[in-house]
Amino acid sequence: MEHGAQELLLELFVIFLAAKVIGELFERFKLPAVLGEILAGALIGPFALGWVHPTSFTQSIAEIGAIFVLFHAGLETSPGDLIRVGPKALLVAIAGIILPFVLGFGYMHLRGDAMTESIFVGAAMVATSVGITARVLGDLGVLSTTTAKIIMGAAVFDDILGMLLLAIVEGLARAGGVQWLKLGILAGEALLFALFMIFVGPRIMRRARPRVDRLSTRHASLIVALVVCLFLSWLSAKIGMAAIIGAFFAGMIFADHAVDWDLLPRVHAITEFLGPFFFFSIGAQLNARLFSGDVLVAAIVVTVLAILSKVVGCGLPVMKDGWRTALAVGVGMMPRGEVALIIALVGLSSQIVTQSTYAIVVFMTAITTLLAPPALRYLFRNEPSSATAH
Amino acid sequence: MEHGAQELLLELFVIFLAAKVIGELFERFKLPAVLGEILAGALIGPFALGWVHPTSFTQSIAEIGAIFVLFHAGLETSPGDLIRVGPKALLVAIAGIILPFVLGFGYMHLRGDAMTESIFVGAAMVATSVGITARVLGDLGVLSTTTAKIIMGAAVFDDILGMLLLAIVEGLARAGGVQWLKLGILAGEALLFALFMIFVGPRIMRRARPRVDRLSTRHASLIVALVVCLFLSWLSAKIGMAAIIGAFFAGMIFADHAVDWDLLPRVHAITEFLGPFFFFSIGAQLNARLFSGDVLVAAIVVTVLAILSKVVGCGLPVMKDGWRTALAVGVGMMPRGEVALIIALVGLSSQIVTQSTYAIVVFMTAITTLLAPPALRYLFRNEPSSATAH
Repeated sequence: MEHGAQELLLELFVIFLAAKVIGELFERFKLPAVLGEILAGALIGPFALGWVHPTSFTQSIAEIGAIFVLFHAGLETSPGDLIRVGPKALLVAIAGIILPFVLGFGYMHLRGDAMTESIFVGAAMVATSVGITARVLGDLGVLSTTTAKIIMGAAVFDDILGMLLLAIVEGLARAGGVQWLKLGILAGEALLFALFMIFVGPRIMRRARPRVDRLSTRHASLIVALVVCLFLSWLSAKIGMAAIIGAFFAGMIFADHAVDWDLLPRVHAITEFLGPFFFFSIGAQLNARLFSGDVLVAAIVVTVLAILSKVVGCGLPVMKDGWRTALAVGVGMMPRGEVALIIALVGLSSQIVTQSTYAIVVFMTAITTLLAPPALRYLFRNEPSSATAH
Repeated sequence: MEHGAQELLLELFVIFLAAKVIGELFERFKLPAVLGEILAGALIGPFALGWVHPTSFTQSIAEIGAIFVLFHAGLETSPGDLIRVGPKALLVAIAGIILPFVLGFGYMHLRGDAMTESIFVGAAMVATSVGITARVLGDLGVLSTTTAKIIMGAAVFDDILGMLLLAIVEGLARAGGVQWLKLGILAGEALLFALFMIFVGPRIMRRARPRVDRLSTRHASLIVALVVCLFLSWLSAKIGMAAIIGAFFAGMIFADHAVDWDLLPRVHAITEFLGPFFFFSIGAQLNARLFSGDVLVAAIVVTVLAILSKVVGCGLPVMKDGWRTALAVGVGMMPRGEVALIIALVGLSSQIVTQSTYAIVVFMTAITTLLAPPALRYLFRNEPSSATAH
């Protein structure tokens, strides 16, 4: 309306269009659209064509986009299912966290990188992308198989553990170095937050539900969900964790009511609008020219370690179910996504990791996400496909 | 994520919560929720309690919110229906524009206000709120009556004519005075834009539809609609009109496909999230302390003129259908809404109307919106109510 509105709208239009056009091209070649959106940022962002120089406004929109991406992921994560899938998924998740972290941290440290930088890369290698995995398994129509159930359960635990690690990494970023006492307090805080959200949050929600249904506001359930999402996002930022952790848990405590309240398509619509700004900004901060010599070698090594560590780490605990199941579980846990990218972004914007380290993490995320769908399709090729409604 | 994210989230949370809590209270007393959201801004904004001082970020969010409010209104306006309702609705609309404008402009001018200020008040008195009217008629279950059809058709024409007037007023704001040549060019441009969007836009859309359906991107129709909305918003800002005019027309060219593509609930979800920031910012810029002496008198006179001019102006062309129909049409056309508020905001932010004039327009909008629902309920009390699904 006033001055600047025109530039602001042009920026929003160009970013959204570019992200969606390249996303569409990726979809046509059966590649994950999200990678297309990142590529759009890398292509027309300041480091390449320079058509768009993200302003503080689009950066803020990107942050809110990340919150909705995680809020939506949380909505698809029922806390009850999580408690039920039992020890096997948790075991897969924990093994699939320790091995990648140790290998990632170890390699970077041996390579001569700083302590904090090595921790960041290790942390970014930890969290499997529930979104990518769920979508590929859903497309294949195998979500009801035991193997898929283990993968999904583990991926979710993994996300929560990854979130806790992100909380720690964030604390690290703020403290500007490894301060064990602060780290311990933060880890405890994050664990308490997670336990509260998994065990107490859903109970509060069940009690509050009749009251929400009695509200006079139209679509009161969506409004309440948005209020809780904004509140928990702020709260987790306030107590020293990343805002997206709160957004994820906010989604989780609404997960059991998402169908009755028709929340998924509505929150998804908001995510469809705001999410691309987040993925675009991931790409826009990526200097692709850095991929040469040492950095390229490190990126390839980290990617190979990221793949092997998940396949081995997540496969081993289920070896007694047969090597094919073990391999499928390992490969299913391979794609990294939003959480890895957010960890990288936190590191970059707090200026405690270099542009090269950021580039390595984005490279690793892109390749693992690219390889998982065709590999899963191959491994599940003989499974009977059930209804593919997903 | 980075510095400021915490403050930003707190600001979003507080504004959204305040708007929705007061909106809920209004709903309980059967008052329009949108007035509650404006009141929230007036209460906790900088002129009263001062809990929230809108930043440039929330101002930009408010602008995008306004775009979605109008995009959503456009989605509910089928261009075909508009062409069919014929001359009666157009006549009601035109009479209902001339009389309020002349009376509003005349009173302010006689009162000694500047030319531009008088034009702004006149313009703000023109556009009936389709949203409020449709919602009340829908709640009463009388949308299928002839009277309701005339009201709805006229309200939509009225919105389009109001938009054209807004384009002119915007041009005025930019030029900083009445420049008849520029005004003429702008009015011609706006008229061409409107005619193109009503007659050519929907044809292009019908042709493009099979291609949109063939896209690989999930929910491609929503994405395409968002792209068109951002583009037309930018375009109309670019050619010198308000961005929301483009947003309204973008909605209109998708209106005939909105049901098949399930666009309404999705766009509505985005509007539910972003819209409150717009209405809150309306209130936040309102200095309620100005309502005393002269300003209060002027606000009351303008409000009475706004009511009388619509009741008489819109009622007269349908007098031969009986005085009850004429009265119902007139009262149905009474509530002003988004367009009036946006005109006021354009004037305020371009600094060509004073805070007092802004306050007068907001007062007029609030009272006409408050009075219309009970008055319509009374006038339609004997109509047989059909299915109330709306």
